[in-house]
Amino acid sequence: METEKWFYENQTKHTRIGIQTIAQLYEEKTSYQTIKIFETVEYGRMLVLDDIVQVTELDEFAYHEMLSHVPLHAHPDPQSVLIVGGGDGGTVREVTKHNSVKRIVLAEIDEAVIRSSINYMPSVGVALSNNPKLEIYIGDAVKYVSQAKERFDLVIVDSSDPRGFAEGLFSSDFYCSVNSLLSESGMVATQGESPWLNYRPMIKRILGDFKEIFPIAKMYWGNVPTYPAGAMVYPIGSKVADPATPQRVAVPDLRYYSHEIHKSAFILPRYLQVEQM
Amino acid sequence: METEKWFYENQTKHTRIGIQTIAQLYEEKTSYQTIKIFETVEYGRMLVLDDIVQVTELDEFAYHEMLSHVPLHAHPDPQSVLIVGGGDGGTVREVTKHNSVKRIVLAEIDEAVIRSSINYMPSVGVALSNNPKLEIYIGDAVKYVSQAKERFDLVIVDSSDPRGFAEGLFSSDFYCSVNSLLSESGMVATQGESPWLNYRPMIKRILGDFKEIFPIAKMYWGNVPTYPAGAMVYPIGSKVADPATPQRVAVPDLRYYSHEIHKSAFILPRYLQVEQM
Repeated sequence: METEKWFYENQTKHTRIGIQTIAQLYEEKTSYQTIKIFETVEYGRMLVLDDIVQVTELDEFAYHEMLSHVPLHAHPDPQSVLIVGGGDGGTVREVTKHNSVKRIVLAEIDEAVIRSSINYMPSVGVALSNNPKLEIYIGDAVKYVSQAKERFDLVIVDSSDPRGFAEGLFSSDFYCSVNSLLSESGMVATQGESPWLNYRPMIKRILGDFKEIFPIAKMYWGNVPTYPAGAMVYPIGSKVADPATPQRVAVPDLRYYSHEIHKSAFILPRYLQVEQM
Repeated sequence: METEKWFYENQTKHTRIGIQTIAQLYEEKTSYQTIKIFETVEYGRMLVLDDIVQVTELDEFAYHEMLSHVPLHAHPDPQSVLIVGGGDGGTVREVTKHNSVKRIVLAEIDEAVIRSSINYMPSVGVALSNNPKLEIYIGDAVKYVSQAKERFDLVIVDSSDPRGFAEGLFSSDFYCSVNSLLSESGMVATQGESPWLNYRPMIKRILGDFKEIFPIAKMYWGNVPTYPAGAMVYPIGSKVADPATPQRVAVPDLRYYSHEIHKSAFILPRYLQVEQM
């Protein structure tokens, strides 16, 4: 009888999630991280970077839709979008659903993430190939953002956790550079980690930075089962428009996002209201 | 060097959560279940029934506040409340915060849960002793509900998972009995398990039952970190008032609930809208 195979992620030093796998489909050690892709029993295919779950086929829509469609619907006419990180392509896929968007730049440090998603998670990586709107920049997004001359209507930061090479994507300096990259009515949304456990001080700090840098700074939240505590917050900065108000007709056939969810995601449980943190 | 101690819950057959413990404080095998109480590193004290996490000091407020305060604020004048299950006392504690409530009946099958919560989780069990409004009935809630002559303004079903003795609390028959127990403008709210993984068919079934039994039937949701997928849905049935509309001044100093959260909790992600399930 075959023994069960389990993948464990240490979500914190003291909390783990265990996901039963059927097989490991891929492993690659790059200059930046170790990429693994598993077939799992309940979550479909699962992308893991340095033993942290990034994407599962079961629940990735809950994350990618909320990270993308909130700024995309709150901006009056998003034509150009910079995605920082997000090499798996889930965010590119969602951005591509907006016809107003003519140009997408994906700044991903590790080309192997893109390649493995295209090869092993086609439902996630689908918009990474044969996408005439998409330009892929392989390199450090911090450098890209500080040197770019182009302006973007939206910047979406779809990074891994703030460790190692991704740490710079959570700094005040980085968001200052992002601000100077935004067009007149630009917006930036980012993954802000879980609102529970040891993450809360960082959220408060990032939100403080956003309030200093952007004329309008807010935070919204949603449920993502495979992220710590099943919850994710998304800090969002805007130059003009209120990010909590959808301004454009909703993209059809989404599985998490709606205009109503957009607005309600800005209603935070009391413990998450900044004055309570 | 001491080895780390971990408690694992099989949330489904294929998904686990691991929580590092400091010590096991209590264990009792009753006629119904095995009760364990742990001291954990990140979650404070934790109550476990048959190896399923029921309550942790860290996140129980997210569950107990939403299960209780939504019906309590939506009802115009709740004076009598029946709590089914909930022997840990967290729901009693929240209900007791409403001055309009004059009488609370707690129908708990296992007195040992009450005793262990009072002894080991005083912040949760605080309202179980010396509470002049509270009457405790030790026995099968299905029997209590089918035989009771008293009417209640609210019934709150705070049960464990639908296995063994708790299975009857998820049946259509049970909610028919609950309906006949409700006063003229009565309401019932229940824990409806996680909206992810293998739980979804049951949610759809319960909501179908509610729609047949109660004039108004809705469902709301919230984030609870230690429950599967970090999410919990709450089916709610009402005879007259819309459960999504708070009718009374909000109880102060809550940590999750607010009027705004009350209303937004009824906005479901698209995948959870019944027609999508």
